[in-house]
Amino acid sequence: MKYKVIFYPDNIQIKVEEGENLLRAAMIAGVCLNASCGGDGTCGKCRVIIEKGIVEQQSTGRLTTKEIEQGYVLACLSKVGSDLEVRIPSESRLGKFIERKAPSASHMLIARGWEEYLSSWKMSPPVQKFYIEMSPPSLDDNTDDLRRIKRTLSKTHGLKEEVDIDLSILKYMVRILREANWRVTVTLVEFDSHTKIIKIEAGDTTGKNYAVAVDIGTTTIGARLINLSKQVAGAQGSKYNAQASCGADVISRMIFSCKKDGLVKLQSLVVDTISELIAELVSKAGIEFSDISCLILAGNTIMTHLFFGLSPKYIREAPYIPTATNFPWIKAKDFGMNIFEEVYAYCFPCVASYVGGDVVAGVIASGMSRSNKLTLFIDVGTNGEIVLGNADWLLACSCSAGPAFEGGGVKHGMRAIKGAIEQIRIDRNTYEPMILTIGQTKPVGICGSGLIDALAEMFLSKIVDQRGKINVNIDCPRVREGEHRPEYVLVWANETANGKDIVVTEVDIDNLIRAKAAIFAGISVLLESANVNASDIEEIFIAGAFGNYLEIERVQVIGLLPECPFEKVKFVGNGSLAGASLGSLSKEILLEAKEVAEKMAYVELSADAKFMDKYISALFLPHTNIELFPTVMKELKNK
Amino acid sequence: MKYKVIFYPDNIQIKVEEGENLLRAAMIAGVCLNASCGGDGTCGKCRVIIEKGIVEQQSTGRLTTKEIEQGYVLACLSKVGSDLEVRIPSESRLGKFIERKAPSASHMLIARGWEEYLSSWKMSPPVQKFYIEMSPPSLDDNTDDLRRIKRTLSKTHGLKEEVDIDLSILKYMVRILREANWRVTVTLVEFDSHTKIIKIEAGDTTGKNYAVAVDIGTTTIGARLINLSKQVAGAQGSKYNAQASCGADVISRMIFSCKKDGLVKLQSLVVDTISELIAELVSKAGIEFSDISCLILAGNTIMTHLFFGLSPKYIREAPYIPTATNFPWIKAKDFGMNIFEEVYAYCFPCVASYVGGDVVAGVIASGMSRSNKLTLFIDVGTNGEIVLGNADWLLACSCSAGPAFEGGGVKHGMRAIKGAIEQIRIDRNTYEPMILTIGQTKPVGICGSGLIDALAEMFLSKIVDQRGKINVNIDCPRVREGEHRPEYVLVWANETANGKDIVVTEVDIDNLIRAKAAIFAGISVLLESANVNASDIEEIFIAGAFGNYLEIERVQVIGLLPECPFEKVKFVGNGSLAGASLGSLSKEILLEAKEVAEKMAYVELSADAKFMDKYISALFLPHTNIELFPTVMKELKNK
Repeated sequence: MKYKVIFYPDNIQIKVEEGENLLRAAMIAGVCLNASCGGDGTCGKCRVIIEKGIVEQQSTGRLTTKEIEQGYVLACLSKVGSDLEVRIPSESRLGKFIERKAPSASHMLIARGWEEYLSSWKMSPPVQKFYIEMSPPSLDDNTDDLRRIKRTLSKTHGLKEEVDIDLSILKYMVRILREANWRVTVTLVEFDSHTKIIKIEAGDTTGKNYAVAVDIGTTTIGARLINLSKQVAGAQGSKYNAQASCGADVISRMIFSCKKDGLVKLQSLVVDTISELIAELVSKAGIEFSDISCLILAGNTIMTHLFFGLSPKYIREAPYIPTATNFPWIKAKDFGMNIFEEVYAYCFPCVASYVGGDVVAGVIASGMSRSNKLTLFIDVGTNGEIVLGNADWLLACSCSAGPAFEGGGVKHGMRAIKGAIEQIRIDRNTYEPMILTIGQTKPVGICGSGLIDALAEMFLSKIVDQRGKINVNIDCPRVREGEHRPEYVLVWANETANGKDIVVTEVDIDNLIRAKAAIFAGISVLLESANVNASDIEEIFIAGAFGNYLEIERVQVIGLLPECPFEKVKFVGNGSLAGASLGSLSKEILLEAKEVAEKMAYVELSADAKFMDKYISALFLPHTNIELFPTVMKELKNK
Repeated sequence: MKYKVIFYPDNIQIKVEEGENLLRAAMIAGVCLNASCGGDGTCGKCRVIIEKGIVEQQSTGRLTTKEIEQGYVLACLSKVGSDLEVRIPSESRLGKFIERKAPSASHMLIARGWEEYLSSWKMSPPVQKFYIEMSPPSLDDNTDDLRRIKRTLSKTHGLKEEVDIDLSILKYMVRILREANWRVTVTLVEFDSHTKIIKIEAGDTTGKNYAVAVDIGTTTIGARLINLSKQVAGAQGSKYNAQASCGADVISRMIFSCKKDGLVKLQSLVVDTISELIAELVSKAGIEFSDISCLILAGNTIMTHLFFGLSPKYIREAPYIPTATNFPWIKAKDFGMNIFEEVYAYCFPCVASYVGGDVVAGVIASGMSRSNKLTLFIDVGTNGEIVLGNADWLLACSCSAGPAFEGGGVKHGMRAIKGAIEQIRIDRNTYEPMILTIGQTKPVGICGSGLIDALAEMFLSKIVDQRGKINVNIDCPRVREGEHRPEYVLVWANETANGKDIVVTEVDIDNLIRAKAAIFAGISVLLESANVNASDIEEIFIAGAFGNYLEIERVQVIGLLPECPFEKVKFVGNGSLAGASLGSLSKEILLEAKEVAEKMAYVELSADAKFMDKYISALFLPHTNIELFPTVMKELKNK
């Protein structure tokens, strides 16, 4: 249910979901409040008056009885419970109130839930459980145990009898059948046109059938539990890829893999990270390891190779050849995932050395590969991958963006987890920030979407110039000389989780600008290769583990994307994880993934001189040629 | 090329292959010579005169120059080199010369070469090698290594691109491809509708593509190397199944398997025996282990279970249920066969607990399952299995014959290998024997066909009576009281390989009679179940690792088979090994094996009261009711 919220004196009206946090509603509306604690309720600055309607409040000691009587609430502790009229007292406002001519809410993109895409696919998980009840054998019906199972599966579930089985299952099956009095649940995996029994359990365990979808990122590994019987997501989590200790990016990992025992170490590190992550999900969800039937993973080509223990040696050397782009279904145990007895794992197919299964998964999840619209897909991870096309053709490239947007190589960068600052507004006059953290707890660091906001806001408020240099002449204690270069204090130590200032440094900004420039240049090359203009693009999908929100104006202010009408842009969130989640629920998706990977043509940027030109031109905010960004230009002039 | 040999004064004429041994030719002709050394050339007694024609002789010190001038040769050292006329001097003859009314050669069955059956099948081995030459990758053709292989296989050999691969191969493939300059041989296994790459080798190794066909017998394991590229057999060998140390028959093995670590021990014993056997074949053939691409095995249901490490617990207990009768293709390494890196193994499907893959293999090899004739198939091993039917229906049963016909439970019994006495004649008056050994070397013991001959000849010469009792009143030093019961000395110590008498004891005879009675009773029950008479049978196949020759008259004298015209009977030799050999060369055969196993109806004898009656009636030579054996009756009267 959606409610209308009007903020006074701004007179801005937005619609939000029931239960939306009021501080976030203000952020979405573009109404900036004092909120230096990230929405934790501790600074007590975001006081607003509810003039009409109901909010659901958490109690706070920051308001007097009298204030409460007058209708005061802390926005960060209030949830929208009806249509609302909210007045912002001047002391709560970030900066002075400026009446806007045509007040409008910002274009906040919320990561679309991957479940939304489910309906367009045939739901038939590659790994399924079937409960069967058999009549016990007798002298008159002395069929062997395995055939009895196949016969019953065929009779009661219409499955073909040509079913393969692992020896390990044959070994224990006999006992289970008799202990369970011939009532068992059979788990089957189906790939290509091959079906295999991978587990036999006593009784009816069809309700306990989980997949784990995994995004094997270079910097961050994300995982989600999928309840295959109910077709819904369960627990979710992420962890830094432990391989980071062997190198921050894919190039350094590949170099490490060629050292003695390097490959084995890298494989065991990623496998351990995934295993730990799964252990967390299992514990969070209160299920058993044995309730998990399969893993569906998606990663870039190098991550996928390292996960399989395949040397990426020839990916690194020209002509950059992967061992494989389609990978077999493999027992998780064969990866050294000893937490599983009988679980099979499948990795999304890759396209080329630098366009991997994560991109294929994201493209599938976005629906781009079934769309007739000319679509641009951007996956911002440690590498930036860009895909242009539609249901008929797909063109892809990859550019080394670096891990900045995942919080890597940024002083207080962090993953998009609880405590990460994901939304920022900076007052144009006072340079005071409004911040919101994931989970609305004390800020720990800044995640991808926070960094985009930070860069955009610092640029719009002229704390940084077009070249990304911090203006140290600004008269504000938040702008100061840092250890090496100037920095901006986003949160003072007394408001942070660890009691230290959270800053954005000029070095951080350099890294962010290089990352966005690489992506913008990649997009430009793809458009040229396909002989289309930016204005021809009908839909843009942004994927990446930034956070839950992405404000498209801010994305365009920093020049990450060509300017385009906001409504064309959609935020996929972690596309790789979304695709892997979908794949765990649909054989059809896994089949289409193969086709998409096959269809996608790869444009090698390292061999493209135009890329370097375009990259250098994009090393400005928003771009050397500001004419390309008329809306940003207008906003800068308005100021 | 066949030659005509006439023996005088008997005036018996036979046709034999060029190069046939002259002593064996005499045996086949029914002309009995003194030959106490097994045909080794040491006793010098089998002197014959070549009156016409050419023999190829080995030199001997047993003949004087004068004798040689007169045309004397030792039959055992002579090979037929043309049409011959041979005179038997009276001193060389076993017993007195008796002129026969209608002299005729005996009906010696020679084990048919399994290659003879090949022509009726489509030759397309389940494991094949393909040599491919690829263009190296470049920036313009940056297809991944695996797809490059699949693409080339598809282009040059018309294979479908849906090919699975093991991770272990992906790991080393990359290096091989580059070291071999993109010229490699790919080994593929195809089962069900699934194709898998199981090996990649540098250069063209298509000429080095061997299968090992294995008969996993309870007592004896036989193996044969098959050159898949030339479709011919290579080295062959056999070994006692080392499991024998845990029990002589399947029942005692099953009991052992239920003890602590029993199953693991039994599996490792059979795997070790097979591994050693393969090592012998590899060394004999002068090939490498890596030249072997697959193992095709056939064994009874219990042997197959133990080979897979599957507990036969419920085979032993009513209602006698196997874990499976169809088994998956499995890496030989997964059986603990560490001699192989990338070899896959497949076991012939079984029918029921006591009718196994060895019988299915034999039935396929004999051609019975494609024949329109009413056929009886008998596999005499440690168990006796009997199949009745034709292309439309198949009825099978199993009876515990014991290992007597494989030389087990018989004092001087042995496998059908070099030194085993395989043919015996005993003079009706002097009780002196003529013996021929496999390989014509000094006798070591007696194999299955020798035991059948021994029993038949001892019965015909009245050394044993209808009940199998040795007549100790016979005035002949060869008939004597043994350690426990009477015995007949087949070879005196001075003529044997180990310097000890080779005897046939009354206990041995008891065991042989029990074995033949069980088989005869099984046949009778099957005939009754199918509602047909023995005389309706149009063809009989006898399979078993007896030896190379089986004389059908002798088989009928002991009452192993119902009497029938000799020409209906064919000797398959080791049917299980023949079927496994054929299977290694033809996917079609493996497919048909599944169908045959499925089609075969099993008759459980343990639940059949008639079986015991028939068994007891058959515990006589040839049978309680001698009217069933009119030919034998006539021969006994003639004497």
